[in-house]
Amino acid sequence: MAKAFTVDLNCDMGESYGAYTIGNDEAVMPFVSSVNIACGFHGGDPSVMKRTVELALKYGLKIGAHPGLPDLQGFGRREMKVSDEEVYDMVLYQIGALASIVQVQGGKLHHVKPHGALYNMAAKDSKLAVAIAQAVKDFDKALVFYGLSGSELIVAGKSVGLTTANEVFADRTYQADGSLTPRSKPNALITNEEEAIEQVMKMVTQGLVTSQDNRHVSISADTICLHGDGEHAVRFAEKIFEKFKLEGIAIK
Amino acid sequence: MAKAFTVDLNCDMGESYGAYTIGNDEAVMPFVSSVNIACGFHGGDPSVMKRTVELALKYGLKIGAHPGLPDLQGFGRREMKVSDEEVYDMVLYQIGALASIVQVQGGKLHHVKPHGALYNMAAKDSKLAVAIAQAVKDFDKALVFYGLSGSELIVAGKSVGLTTANEVFADRTYQADGSLTPRSKPNALITNEEEAIEQVMKMVTQGLVTSQDNRHVSISADTICLHGDGEHAVRFAEKIFEKFKLEGIAIK
Amino acid sequence: MAKAFTVDLNCDMGESYGAYTIGNDEAVMPFVSSVNIACGFHGGDPSVMKRTVELALKYGLKIGAHPGLPDLQGFGRREMKVSDEEVYDMVLYQIGALASIVQVQGGKLHHVKPHGALYNMAAKDSKLAVAIAQAVKDFDKALVFYGLSGSELIVAGKSVGLTTANEVFADRTYQADGSLTPRSKPNALITNEEEAIEQVMKMVTQGLVTSQDNRHVSISADTICLHGDGEHAVRFAEKIFEKFKLEGIAIK
Amino acid sequence: MAKAFTVDLNCDMGESYGAYTIGNDEAVMPFVSSVNIACGFHGGDPSVMKRTVELALKYGLKIGAHPGLPDLQGFGRREMKVSDEEVYDMVLYQIGALASIVQVQGGKLHHVKPHGALYNMAAKDSKLAVAIAQAVKDFDKALVFYGLSGSELIVAGKSVGLTTANEVFADRTYQADGSLTPRSKPNALITNEEEAIEQVMKMVTQGLVTSQDNRHVSISADTICLHGDGEHAVRFAEKIFEKFKLEGIAIK
Repeated sequence: MAKAFTVDLNCDMGESYGAYTIGNDEAVMPFVSSVNIACGFHGGDPSVMKRTVELALKYGLKIGAHPGLPDLQGFGRREMKVSDEEVYDMVLYQIGALASIVQVQGGKLHHVKPHGALYNMAAKDSKLAVAIAQAVKDFDKALVFYGLSGSELIVAGKSVGLTTANEVFADRTYQADGSLTPRSKPNALITNEEEAIEQVMKMVTQGLVTSQDNRHVSISADTICLHGDGEHAVRFAEKIFEKFKLEGIAIK
Repeated sequence: MAKAFTVDLNCDMGESYGAYTIGNDEAVMPFVSSVNIACGFHGGDPSVMKRTVELALKYGLKIGAHPGLPDLQGFGRREMKVSDEEVYDMVLYQIGALASIVQVQGGKLHHVKPHGALYNMAAKDSKLAVAIAQAVKDFDKALVFYGLSGSELIVAGKSVGLTTANEVFADRTYQADGSLTPRSKPNALITNEEEAIEQVMKMVTQGLVTSQDNRHVSISADTICLHGDGEHAVRFAEKIFEKFKLEGIAIK
Repeated sequence: MAKAFTVDLNCDMGESYGAYTIGNDEAVMPFVSSVNIACGFHGGDPSVMKRTVELALKYGLKIGAHPGLPDLQGFGRREMKVSDEEVYDMVLYQIGALASIVQVQGGKLHHVKPHGALYNMAAKDSKLAVAIAQAVKDFDKALVFYGLSGSELIVAGKSVGLTTANEVFADRTYQADGSLTPRSKPNALITNEEEAIEQVMKMVTQGLVTSQDNRHVSISADTICLHGDGEHAVRFAEKIFEKFKLEGIAIK
Repeated sequence: MAKAFTVDLNCDMGESYGAYTIGNDEAVMPFVSSVNIACGFHGGDPSVMKRTVELALKYGLKIGAHPGLPDLQGFGRREMKVSDEEVYDMVLYQIGALASIVQVQGGKLHHVKPHGALYNMAAKDSKLAVAIAQAVKDFDKALVFYGLSGSELIVAGKSVGLTTANEVFADRTYQADGSLTPRSKPNALITNEEEAIEQVMKMVTQGLVTSQDNRHVSISADTICLHGDGEHAVRFAEKIFEKFKLEGIAIK
């Protein structure tokens, strides 16, 4: 009997702000199993958060908080030298704000995934990663902690006693040490959809990824990050979704 | 046997922001029974909120959320035309953020008191007042709702099923209809401390206030608002506190 | 010999912010003669402002500052109780910021048009209107002051000695007193393009508008406000532009 | 005949924000010759800027712009990964905003000094330093560019053709390479006032500073940075001012 595979498909959402719309949240929802909702620091505002939670509940998706740096203008993508304590405080604040919105709608927060520069900095900085993980744990130890597969985020999540989810990317290439090829390098992105799907399939079913220098590297793929911005992204989400259904991979 | 009186003394706190300090939070804490902590919109930031919660717990004070309009520059004192729905969303967001900080420190949120222009607008606008009260109720129906004595805030709190606390001011004069004399009018403020204390004593023990046109007006005084800004404010808080102890009025 | 008509077509631009895009700035530019560029308070940021100025200069358009209330989340559309002095200060600040960007690119600021709630409040509030006009005048008395046709903005601009431009709207209906039908009323908007163009033609060539109660009302139309958001808006801008060319009305 | 020495004493000012007050601006003004006024990004708002400019003009001080990173919560002290282009844009924006306020009051902007993390990052990063200097130069090539003595800021200022002012600190110790001892190290600060004044005198009259490892290091001291926060700072400003008068060092 064939081995049964299960994977989570996640997408960042609720990053619109006031009169500004970003992403195609509802269009992607049919094809994912979990959403990471911005909490008002790098994107999102209380009303956007509410509408996004309503949609996520309507589609039966797992809801996560997506806390970011306090930099709306930079969309949370500019690294900032914040102290571990500041990070603990801002993550807790953002989780609490979103959790209250989920709760009054009858839902329950399922996970936390840091955003942008906060995610990237903490993936390499164990103290920062622990600060984030500790805030998650202190708020609710049942929350799942999403982080870059095999990174300091995962190590930190485990160290504080959280359930972790190793996140992989369909459209990014990998290095021999399992890290992402930096965006500043050529070939950082996989633009060919077939290749992207092939990479994802291999990660999910074999736990392997082919690195840029053509080595087979072990990788854990608990959850796959899809993007929601642009028509292309929506179609790609649908393609991955259909491929998984076809191959009997459970999405949950 | 003499009748026993009980009153709550509250003070707005945690309104500092980053490098900016406002108020003498800890200096006032020995003389009050509850604090209203800013939630990052009109003042406060995640780290200020955490430190303020720590202090409040150390002094054994009841902790309330003090949500305001999203106007840091105006300190939440400038009226803004926000929709009822926006207000519901921003109040819920702010309560949730503070509640998470209280909870991880082992405390529990006790009450909510709107701040500044949000408080003043809702005191007269029943729909706005209901939007706020509903957010409080939806988050936790055990929360006490602080509002201007006899105002639409109190009516709204009761209408949604919350326990309410009628708030009075020691240093403000009143009109014949029980409303505050607007600050734009002469004699809006009581600058003489003895008069202020006398007014408070009368409100607490007799349920009456003498209006500007010399009438005895009924007023409910469940909680008294003290200010924390300036040395003068701290001394006044201590004076009221001492007077109440002397007169056997329980502060809780 | 036929009378020659001249009119300005203006459009609000540069209202994107960081990762957020709003409007189709460049698509509308071929069809307008002047642009009002957001200055970072209700929309826009320094980098967006620079790119918008570059585009406007490329298309040879007159550049105006479009200062708004400090409310990015509300896109400057929520009324705020700001003092006349605060308004003077914030308008001057925003004009100065934009003017510096225009100047280093070799251009020159041509006009100022307040945005959103600031525009609407000042159209009815003469003191607010004078505060804005005075800031414009103090910065550079050669600037043209755009305001709602016949409103307090125009009165204020004239009173401080500025050249004024009466602004009219193609897609809004008017009342017998020359004011806009409030958006809260039915029929506030003209959705039929032919009617909108007809109204504009009548305003420009006859100085008249037909009010909602079917009266011919005098109106000055120095500049017509076009919108830049949505494909529909771009097509409409082109239609008006073509109609004017056909009718021999000079756009400048 | 004795050699005549001249030096500028500068102080950061106008960093209050809305209801938040920081610094003792007016108290320090009698003892300095130039002020660096915050421009609304790390501190300051349009109304604070106006009041500060009024005061500076009243005291006959040279007025400089003090642009910072867009991080009010961190008071512009947290490093952010901003691109050179973003920095150019934000510096130009801030200079323009302040210049407009100075100009309408009949003054003229004299210099620009970057603030906090922007200053520190650019002191070591030549590309960032050039981006800032270029914005200053493009706005007005007559502006003096203040930067850490001997740092990349000074190099950049000269390279774009600006007049530069080497800034030294009375209360910071120096390394053998002329750089400041990082605040994270012990002995970074000079807390003894006499030592601080002695260090300043030596820098101004001999062009030398004694480094932490007891070497005599060449240093240019065109302007000395004084602090305005706290009573202590005001008294120290007065002491330096009096010492210079006594020693016949011209302050201008």
